[in-house]
Amino acid sequence: MAVRAAVAGASGYAGGEVLRLLLAHPEVEIGALTGNSNAGQRLGTLQPHLLPLADRVLQETTADVLAGHDVVFLALPHGQSAAVAEQLGPDVLVVDMGADFRLEDAADWEKFYGSAHAGTWPYGLPELPGARARLTGTRRIAVPGCYPTAVTLALFPAYVAGIAENEAVIVAASGTSGAGKAPKPNLLGSEVMGSMSPYGVGGGHRHTPEIVQNLSAAAGARVSVSFTPTLAPMPRGILATCSAKAKPGVTAESVRAAYEKALADEPFVHLLPEGQWPATASVYGSNAVQVQVVLDESVGRIIAISAIDNLAKGTAGGAVQSMNIALGLPEELGLSTIGVAP
Amino acid sequence: MAVRAAVAGASGYAGGEVLRLLLAHPEVEIGALTGNSNAGQRLGTLQPHLLPLADRVLQETTADVLAGHDVVFLALPHGQSAAVAEQLGPDVLVVDMGADFRLEDAADWEKFYGSAHAGTWPYGLPELPGARARLTGTRRIAVPGCYPTAVTLALFPAYVAGIAENEAVIVAASGTSGAGKAPKPNLLGSEVMGSMSPYGVGGGHRHTPEIVQNLSAAAGARVSVSFTPTLAPMPRGILATCSAKAKPGVTAESVRAAYEKALADEPFVHLLPEGQWPATASVYGSNAVQVQVVLDESVGRIIAISAIDNLAKGTAGGAVQSMNIALGLPEELGLSTIGVAP
Amino acid sequence: MAVRAAVAGASGYAGGEVLRLLLAHPEVEIGALTGNSNAGQRLGTLQPHLLPLADRVLQETTADVLAGHDVVFLALPHGQSAAVAEQLGPDVLVVDMGADFRLEDAADWEKFYGSAHAGTWPYGLPELPGARARLTGTRRIAVPGCYPTAVTLALFPAYVAGIAENEAVIVAASGTSGAGKAPKPNLLGSEVMGSMSPYGVGGGHRHTPEIVQNLSAAAGARVSVSFTPTLAPMPRGILATCSAKAKPGVTAESVRAAYEKALADEPFVHLLPEGQWPATASVYGSNAVQVQVVLDESVGRIIAISAIDNLAKGTAGGAVQSMNIALGLPEELGLSTIGVAP
Amino acid sequence: MAVRAAVAGASGYAGGEVLRLLLAHPEVEIGALTGNSNAGQRLGTLQPHLLPLADRVLQETTADVLAGHDVVFLALPHGQSAAVAEQLGPDVLVVDMGADFRLEDAADWEKFYGSAHAGTWPYGLPELPGARARLTGTRRIAVPGCYPTAVTLALFPAYVAGIAENEAVIVAASGTSGAGKAPKPNLLGSEVMGSMSPYGVGGGHRHTPEIVQNLSAAAGARVSVSFTPTLAPMPRGILATCSAKAKPGVTAESVRAAYEKALADEPFVHLLPEGQWPATASVYGSNAVQVQVVLDESVGRIIAISAIDNLAKGTAGGAVQSMNIALGLPEELGLSTIGVAP
Repeated sequence: MAVRAAVAGASGYAGGEVLRLLLAHPEVEIGALTGNSNAGQRLGTLQPHLLPLADRVLQETTADVLAGHDVVFLALPHGQSAAVAEQLGPDVLVVDMGADFRLEDAADWEKFYGSAHAGTWPYGLPELPGARARLTGTRRIAVPGCYPTAVTLALFPAYVAGIAENEAVIVAASGTSGAGKAPKPNLLGSEVMGSMSPYGVGGGHRHTPEIVQNLSAAAGARVSVSFTPTLAPMPRGILATCSAKAKPGVTAESVRAAYEKALADEPFVHLLPEGQWPATASVYGSNAVQVQVVLDESVGRIIAISAIDNLAKGTAGGAVQSMNIALGLPEELGLSTIGVAP
Repeated sequence: MAVRAAVAGASGYAGGEVLRLLLAHPEVEIGALTGNSNAGQRLGTLQPHLLPLADRVLQETTADVLAGHDVVFLALPHGQSAAVAEQLGPDVLVVDMGADFRLEDAADWEKFYGSAHAGTWPYGLPELPGARARLTGTRRIAVPGCYPTAVTLALFPAYVAGIAENEAVIVAASGTSGAGKAPKPNLLGSEVMGSMSPYGVGGGHRHTPEIVQNLSAAAGARVSVSFTPTLAPMPRGILATCSAKAKPGVTAESVRAAYEKALADEPFVHLLPEGQWPATASVYGSNAVQVQVVLDESVGRIIAISAIDNLAKGTAGGAVQSMNIALGLPEELGLSTIGVAP
Repeated sequence: MAVRAAVAGASGYAGGEVLRLLLAHPEVEIGALTGNSNAGQRLGTLQPHLLPLADRVLQETTADVLAGHDVVFLALPHGQSAAVAEQLGPDVLVVDMGADFRLEDAADWEKFYGSAHAGTWPYGLPELPGARARLTGTRRIAVPGCYPTAVTLALFPAYVAGIAENEAVIVAASGTSGAGKAPKPNLLGSEVMGSMSPYGVGGGHRHTPEIVQNLSAAAGARVSVSFTPTLAPMPRGILATCSAKAKPGVTAESVRAAYEKALADEPFVHLLPEGQWPATASVYGSNAVQVQVVLDESVGRIIAISAIDNLAKGTAGGAVQSMNIALGLPEELGLSTIGVAP
Repeated sequence: MAVRAAVAGASGYAGGEVLRLLLAHPEVEIGALTGNSNAGQRLGTLQPHLLPLADRVLQETTADVLAGHDVVFLALPHGQSAAVAEQLGPDVLVVDMGADFRLEDAADWEKFYGSAHAGTWPYGLPELPGARARLTGTRRIAVPGCYPTAVTLALFPAYVAGIAENEAVIVAASGTSGAGKAPKPNLLGSEVMGSMSPYGVGGGHRHTPEIVQNLSAAAGARVSVSFTPTLAPMPRGILATCSAKAKPGVTAESVRAAYEKALADEPFVHLLPEGQWPATASVYGSNAVQVQVVLDESVGRIIAISAIDNLAKGTAGGAVQSMNIALGLPEELGLSTIGVAP
């Protein structure tokens, strides 16, 4: 019996990507598609790459429309998921690709988002210790942010192993799709092609508290995070360059061992052979994560770098992976580790 | 029972793409991978996006290595396929992604390639009239060139319907992967990013006689072709802008009808709704073709435009599609019409 | 004594580019800068690349603000230039970088722009026969469109020499800055990077009648034009691929001779040596035009290709070049033929 | 009387860029142009953007050819400059755009370059304390590396002011022209477009000791540097994201004051208004540097970010700026602070 899935917010980038993945999922049947400002339009106009769904027409995002599905993916502006989820009832699997239920600390939420905290749902990063158990059988999933996915997968092995000091410095480059499909002057092709630029510098990016939360959980102690995101001239991909001082006595071998231990059995996270470095092109369109780590002995820092596709593993792929676990399906079902390159 | 496939030339772009597609093909098992100058290297180094094959090691391209497979894909420099094919025997399906067996006219071959003509194999463009019958059961397939695929699918409906004069003017833009992986100064990222430039102008491009051959077959008469290829700052994709004078009495309605008739049942070629135009991003990584056509009444020309992924439908996807037909498998098996966008 | 110049519409791409060029012009002093929706903002925020003007603040576009200058450049939405120009009086040189005064035929204007025709001003393409005489001393200049600049400079030598039939087929690729700075979903970086797509196909683009006007004037007879513009993944540049049937008896030598004769003395238009083809990267940021032409004898067509920077020679550079002529300054003053490459 | 300049290595990116700048320099006359493997070729073929020099032919790089100039710019592979410089005699100004004479510590040179140290020349970063005095009248200039230029200008104000701890963490993104014009597979457009990737991670990049040297000189004490360069999908530009812990008691105001003091009088380095961040597009083709700094109080780090054009201020522009100082010309002569954008 197929899993029937609805997507709210199907005209945006996250919604389009989850549809792309669900179309390839052998156990999923695509149900209602909604999008408020675009309700009534053909998907073929809004998402011309999804040819099998070209003649589907978007509906309004209402509880009536979303009712009667096994899974509902929410790709809504932040602050809107709670109301929708409530109306869907406790038996429907609600997978929120927005930020609303990621943070555990209400004060963090209020500081970074400026509204009341809606709550905390099981966090959809299966690779974290204990995460798979928390996701199994759940009917509510908070999909991680794209930067936190890339950064956490690069650094959690070091914090779990206790080899890194609790101050991380992170500089990440993201493709422009991470900024969404709403047209803004600074996101025009004319502006972004040929340009690198930072934003949200100095701790202001909303993904900072989520990164802190993840790394602190791995370390068992508060990890401070200096996080600088930059906008790169590419549609997709995140390259996260992360570092922290190594604890006394840590060696290149112990660093490697920590990462091998943490990542050995992960189906999607690949620790590259020594000497090979991640590239976002290699994971384009896939759920794979490339990770490499090195100890820079001249400065005593562990440098861990990851590459993901921000829309795939960083959003919709992570969502489908967690859905598989929640529903008791094989975790890799419908997901690929093969990038579209060159 | 799985089809066992070998790929000769697995380190290049065509070889890498056919592997990407075969990995997703439910009936294919990947056998030997060869590559002369790269023999002995891990595929994980050469094609880092093909994670499931990362630990495979390339072998030399010899008959011994390629023996014992049901299908052998050849992604070799032109002139090398005949010798390999001969050694493989008549029962193995040999799919040549190079140019060697595409042209019917030996004089054309000699003029454009400067060597002796090796012969002509069944031409792997299933959408052409009669092609599926010729491909069914064959053990030799000549995969079309990328530009001929895009141009032929844009124009053959007009020539089959007899609505266009026999002089076509074609300007096509291709992503850089069409030029291959051998490093040349003019293909450096520094040179191609931000730049459009033509090459092979004035009939000199080797795909010109192949386009002439296809359109002439469709028209039942010699079609002259002015073909100008240009290099566009993108890794993949071909946008082919094709036009020809409309025959007297042709109307917008008769143009549309001709295209609807020719393309209605095609699984991969989509005639877009009126007013929507092809974009290479929409077919990125997929076997889909977007086509649109219009009659410009002010000048009496039919303008047909197509978008394909040059490595997928334009090379490796077309190869797999033809393989499916040759082997009696469902034509769409393992192939997607869903682009990776944005 | 310096020429005092004002720029109306200084926050957009055309306005920014004319400022970039005027800053390097030894005889020009920059006066008032206006921009309606952005009035009151620092130019450093709107045009961060124009560091010497960073602290200038935009004013409202009114006759009072623009009064008292020797030259006023208008970079306004179409339909707004006539009213401004009238208020400035006949002694001020008004250089309109919009479309309002380019077309001679009022019916063409009304068909393509849907409003009443404002009139026709001397056309700022100095390379056309007789143009320099018409521009000398004028106080009104209609700056050509970017596509018409590229196409006309590629084809007028053929029509002046009478070697081409009167039906031209043109496919041009433009960088995204040609579409302006107003944010639209299809111009987002996420959409345009990695994608080629056509628009305004079938004679619908507003630059079509302007191209017809220019080529017809050169030919002394109506030239029909099939014009297909495409959007390319680069910020700047136009590559125009233009062709027409050669008249009977035309040879490769006569084609070359026609172009050498027409372009030999042009300071900005460079006919490349045989075998070398234009590239938009080579003219990036410069007022130079690269042209190449060939006779494809197999199909009897003259193929002429040009590359320009759409914002420089295609808009603001052409404007400054014409201003120089109008004011009796050396035509090349303040303009460069050196591209910024790679 | 004009300064007569020769360029050795005129076919590469650094050589081409210095020619682009010298063509715009009012006091320089361009003399001999050399390039070993390309000797005998027209510059119009090798550097098609330099139209005024298109008919110049490259000569062999010999002392005879380079003799008789006031200035010789060397854009040679590392290790080759010393021999050439010696033959030119002490009265010729030799400006080495390679690495040979940048490092003061012979052991550093040998460790990172693997050959004997040639010596140390006055370092061409005029913005550093005391640098202008050292450059005035010199006849030997070591032009800084592109990354060291970007990083040093971002961080030296903090170290001169004594507000930062002596451990810096730097992640920088560079356009591909920084890797030069020699064709390598990983630099193909197909590989770099759409991809971010790191290289030389863990202290291995040759620019690391140069950065250490500069920051240590500014601090008056050894500064340790963790430096991770990444390759970005753009032809030009470096964005350097640099941080270090703030010393106790440092406030947002004292950080701002330190940068204002250090940069206030610099003609090319612009400390942006608070809230505006650097973008490489804004300095494209120019000698300008954009810098912004902030104190992230949540983690106690000073974050300083700079944007430069790697070929201009990062190589050839820095070279011309230093030449101006050495020859007693106005420092800004022939150099622009205006970027080519969008």
